[in-house]
Amino acid sequence: MPYYIGDVIQEQSKLIARTPEKFREGGIEVQLQAHVSGINPAKGIVELQDNRQIPYDILVMATGTSAIVPDMPGLDLSGVFSLRNLEDAIHIKTWLKEKRAKHVVIIGGGFIGLEMSEALSASGITTTIIHKDPLPANRWDTALSSMMLEELHAHGVEFIANAAALAIEKGKNALLCVRTDKGDYEGDLVLLAIGVRPDARLAHSLGLKIGPSGAIAVNFSQQTSLENVYAAGDCCESFHRISRRWVNIPLGDIANKQGRVAGRNIGGQPLTFDGIVGAQSFRLFNLECAATGLSEKEALAVGYTPASNITWGSAMAPALGLRKIGLKLIADQSSGKLLGAQAVGVAGAVGRINALSVALWAGMDLDQIGYLDLAYAPPFSPAWDIIHNAAQALGRSL
Amino acid sequence: MPYYIGDVIQEQSKLIARTPEKFREGGIEVQLQAHVSGINPAKGIVELQDNRQIPYDILVMATGTSAIVPDMPGLDLSGVFSLRNLEDAIHIKTWLKEKRAKHVVIIGGGFIGLEMSEALSASGITTTIIHKDPLPANRWDTALSSMMLEELHAHGVEFIANAAALAIEKGKNALLCVRTDKGDYEGDLVLLAIGVRPDARLAHSLGLKIGPSGAIAVNFSQQTSLENVYAAGDCCESFHRISRRWVNIPLGDIANKQGRVAGRNIGGQPLTFDGIVGAQSFRLFNLECAATGLSEKEALAVGYTPASNITWGSAMAPALGLRKIGLKLIADQSSGKLLGAQAVGVAGAVGRINALSVALWAGMDLDQIGYLDLAYAPPFSPAWDIIHNAAQALGRSL
Repeated sequence: MPYYIGDVIQEQSKLIARTPEKFREGGIEVQLQAHVSGINPAKGIVELQDNRQIPYDILVMATGTSAIVPDMPGLDLSGVFSLRNLEDAIHIKTWLKEKRAKHVVIIGGGFIGLEMSEALSASGITTTIIHKDPLPANRWDTALSSMMLEELHAHGVEFIANAAALAIEKGKNALLCVRTDKGDYEGDLVLLAIGVRPDARLAHSLGLKIGPSGAIAVNFSQQTSLENVYAAGDCCESFHRISRRWVNIPLGDIANKQGRVAGRNIGGQPLTFDGIVGAQSFRLFNLECAATGLSEKEALAVGYTPASNITWGSAMAPALGLRKIGLKLIADQSSGKLLGAQAVGVAGAVGRINALSVALWAGMDLDQIGYLDLAYAPPFSPAWDIIHNAAQALGRSL
Repeated sequence: MPYYIGDVIQEQSKLIARTPEKFREGGIEVQLQAHVSGINPAKGIVELQDNRQIPYDILVMATGTSAIVPDMPGLDLSGVFSLRNLEDAIHIKTWLKEKRAKHVVIIGGGFIGLEMSEALSASGITTTIIHKDPLPANRWDTALSSMMLEELHAHGVEFIANAAALAIEKGKNALLCVRTDKGDYEGDLVLLAIGVRPDARLAHSLGLKIGPSGAIAVNFSQQTSLENVYAAGDCCESFHRISRRWVNIPLGDIANKQGRVAGRNIGGQPLTFDGIVGAQSFRLFNLECAATGLSEKEALAVGYTPASNITWGSAMAPALGLRKIGLKLIADQSSGKLLGAQAVGVAGAVGRINALSVALWAGMDLDQIGYLDLAYAPPFSPAWDIIHNAAQALGRSL
């Protein structure tokens, strides 16, 4: 979403505005601005706020997430935004333009907050990030998120660590001011980016089973606890192949896969969605940041005995130059199987995490990963890739 | 090797010159300029040309490859080189410098010839490539190698297709002239880059079993047909996990792995080298070129019934811009298993081929690959990666 802050957003809006028309051409009715007030599963009817009733044979829940909004004064001030959908992005862009915004305060240093700092920087707007922890992007090891912090500083982003936002007020030198326990930070816009939670309110009212993650429980066919109700996307759970638990990981690629699986099953071409391994990435200025599988903490919580290491290397043969990359591997001590991986680097981090995501999917152990046949050439890796070095080193330590 | 044409080569030479000293410090004797004239396995003695005899308990064959030299007049002219080792590279660099070379003719449009055209271009030297086939890099599908040809043209490289070199003579406007059945091409240096073959001459004389590839046959421990003789690197075979045959693929990463496995077994820490899947890559100016597994022809030859498709896409979400990438997948019609993949693109080709190499290693089928969990973010892929699209499309066609 942050990537659409630029002019692209206009194109996206036009595209989306054309979508209902396209659907109608295909014989599909689209109701915009149609707020659902209730669902009657016994009668098979969706009730809208304007009292219209829409009958259904099969219902698909695709309610996504809602942004978590902190409890503090000043959230109702103009210029305070959260970012959940295209409409939010358009409002943010309009505000930035109308107010000729120069500086933005972002509350939350997770990957959405970080991506926004880059997107705003590309538009010539500086940012301050207020974050509750010492380092950004909690999913990554501190050694790797330290590299992210350096990258933020190198691009003029102010990062206020270990800080709690207390209130938002009108500003003196800018439109708004965020008061925190680490001082006051002014900006022309305040962005709340402290996370999202699955929007399962309608599912609750419908009596659908909700999983421990707070998202709608589904089976491998994306069917909910009601036979004729399916769910797909950020509002429902996925099966995590490494933790063997049902989890809620709200990411666009997972939502796409679930949507297609639900559609196939509803349309009579059965297909199962065989789960995820937790692959994820984002770009932070010149850094690729990627992770997959479980962290040590997550691995411990589901009963593994994890061991880990961090390996530093280059995503290029040393004779050609250095492209710094750090790779963390997490493996199970008893089986030697890979449980997770995290990488941050100026190049090659996403590609390596993808290769390791396939290794996770296939249940590979460190012995296999240490000698995997990868497409070596000096511009892309040393003859021993950091994947080989890391897996062999961790394997020796078990 | 071509990457060392620049100043890096000097560093490499210094490094390698220091190696014998380093080995000596570790109690290892290194004999340079020591040409082996024969081996007596009964007595366990290596005989050198200067009549010295070196006894051994265990012998490691690491004789590498020799460049294939075509049969034509003029090969003995000064300024005609092949490229097999660091010494060749130093001689080439010296010649280029001393003769103030402006243009080089490369005979052979395989990946070494292509890499050399790029390396020379980086040094301000233009090139003509004489190639026997219509398109460069025969391993890749013509749709993909056409993209390579465009890249060559975009960087001022002259590519003479379907041409056979007949003779090398002294030139008129440059030092040398290559006569071909498609005309004469002048240059200040001529590089023979038509391929290599395993150097198994000593192995032959020793009576070692030679595989059908012409390389030294080894087992999974890198042991040859003589119990106390090991082999590693380009001179020996590897087990190809997809063709289930022993093959000779002379690449630096495979050689490194085999060397370590041989060393581990000789040193009493048994380890097997579980083979390769045929992963390979090279950079051509701004293109990443990568391949893994089998081509259709190779798949047919070993008894599969292959099907394939080519998918074009972007290594980036369309909203962010286009980074053209083409992906060819080859799969087995009866099992649906992936057999091979080839990719060419301005970004993301190597990373995707690595992910698919892991999928090949694990024996995955198209249904699994079509829904793999990969680390999606808009700068690195659309929500449906080209891997997903290609695998689903090929799966539907089986």
